[in-house]
Amino acid sequence: MTSPETAFIAALRGIATTPAARALADDCAVLELGGEALVLTHDMMAEGIHWLPGQDPADVAWKLVASNLSDLAAKGAAPLGVLLGYSLGDGQDRFVAGLHAALNAFATPLLGGDTIATPGAQVHGLTALGRATHQPVPSRGGARDGDGVWITGHVGAAMLGFEALRDGGAQMQSSADVTDHFRRPVPRISDGIALAPFVTAMMDISDGLLLDASRMGLASGVTLAIESAAVPLAPGVAEHRRMNALAWGEDYELLFTLPADATPPVPATRVGTAQAKGPHPVLLDGTPPPGPLGYEHGGNGG
Amino acid sequence: MTSPETAFIAALRGIATTPAARALADDCAVLELGGEALVLTHDMMAEGIHWLPGQDPADVAWKLVASNLSDLAAKGAAPLGVLLGYSLGDGQDRFVAGLHAALNAFATPLLGGDTIATPGAQVHGLTALGRATHQPVPSRGGARDGDGVWITGHVGAAMLGFEALRDGGAQMQSSADVTDHFRRPVPRISDGIALAPFVTAMMDISDGLLLDASRMGLASGVTLAIESAAVPLAPGVAEHRRMNALAWGEDYELLFTLPADATPPVPATRVGTAQAKGPHPVLLDGTPPPGPLGYEHGGNGG
Repeated sequence: MTSPETAFIAALRGIATTPAARALADDCAVLELGGEALVLTHDMMAEGIHWLPGQDPADVAWKLVASNLSDLAAKGAAPLGVLLGYSLGDGQDRFVAGLHAALNAFATPLLGGDTIATPGAQVHGLTALGRATHQPVPSRGGARDGDGVWITGHVGAAMLGFEALRDGGAQMQSSADVTDHFRRPVPRISDGIALAPFVTAMMDISDGLLLDASRMGLASGVTLAIESAAVPLAPGVAEHRRMNALAWGEDYELLFTLPADATPPVPATRVGTAQAKGPHPVLLDGTPPPGPLGYEHGGNGG
Repeated sequence: MTSPETAFIAALRGIATTPAARALADDCAVLELGGEALVLTHDMMAEGIHWLPGQDPADVAWKLVASNLSDLAAKGAAPLGVLLGYSLGDGQDRFVAGLHAALNAFATPLLGGDTIATPGAQVHGLTALGRATHQPVPSRGGARDGDGVWITGHVGAAMLGFEALRDGGAQMQSSADVTDHFRRPVPRISDGIALAPFVTAMMDISDGLLLDASRMGLASGVTLAIESAAVPLAPGVAEHRRMNALAWGEDYELLFTLPADATPPVPATRVGTAQAKGPHPVLLDGTPPPGPLGYEHGGNGG
């Protein structure tokens, strides 16, 4: 069975034949212009799908910015600015406050956009563009047999934050606490820039480590063998929830590969090894991971 | 009374302080990069607001592309590509067909984007980027006292097309006819490029000649005095509907000003003169136009 979304993206792929589109299979488009490489991404979020009912619109705005800038980070791009598509609705003052806070935090200018009325749920979009700091711009497709597989930070923080927000209600929203990692994620912009000259492949972990690793494996034509015990869990994630944390998205860490003996220039943890392509794009402790790998969202186009 | 949209855009303006944003008062953002000037715009369209119930999704896709490329045309920019934000729903095959047709017609590549589910009405967004062919990039704000005011083409074609579609129903949609100008507008890309080195100000007519002229007058600090009889009406527009045609949007012609004695390098019609700033940004036959000037949509940010 092909889902409508899969069919739609496949049809778009038939149109997006320019090399800059990277076959809609990377985090961003990469367009050469005037000796520079421009890195471009666009993400949308819909009320009732991408944010919780009653969630602070300031947090929605923050995440919209952060998720797009995380895509730039995965390409080692320095942000140049964003364009906002906003559909009017309740909480617009809070939305502007969160937008302003995020753009200030990540030193990224607002360039323009559009504001519309919608008859139903609010739907917002954001386009982020950045300047590549290293060329060739890292892709998902460069991992080679024998490379080390690494991640920045840890996984599971967004999961804990989501659960605290869901269970604790509105009183959780105003203080700096465990919900921050879910409400106000921080893209790894400077890490991405530091890593770009050294990695063989790089992407951000937005849909879960296992699912995103499987995408990198497929794009690279290798199998990424992950050691579950090597993956750092966020503080507070119980050991019995390790598998949940490996499949939970929205941590916005970077997943990357390096030549076998290389070590990264920023704090990171080696979690596995790229192997010759086998029947599965990702293995966990030597076997195919059980159950769904993570959130089915996708990359540029998906 | 301040509308929520006006208040929102005012708040955004407080954030968008980078010169590239052009104070959210132009058709596009203009960003310098590597010796080039990058021209950027983002427009959204919502089901039930921006397209008729039952309208062919292929036409929706076409207009989404055309309206964004028209903003680039108004800055004399050559399109480099688009990013699509698509919310899933009925008619996705037709949408892809219309997208493909428009991108082919305007020689513009699809670079990437995002696809999401939405719980309510479909909302689509498109970001277009282009390369300025002339610097400084024309703005809305350069018209000077004494300049001639010009438009390409004629006005009222989209009005007739809309009315034919509304009154004629679905059988009107498949043949090349009067509805084409509404369903499948053609942005003036090559005209914009040819005009850019000569104009003192330029914008596209997306919300009606009078309203858009008032915006140019405000941005330029002049009064644009339009002679109604000089404005070319599209074939089929009855003389008694001249005022409707002057206030009807979606014709996607270019409105521009030239030094007093200059003539444009492309076919166009002089429709008035820029005067020293008076109490009204636009005059029609020497007096303030009666009634609403046109569609209140806006520019970059609006």
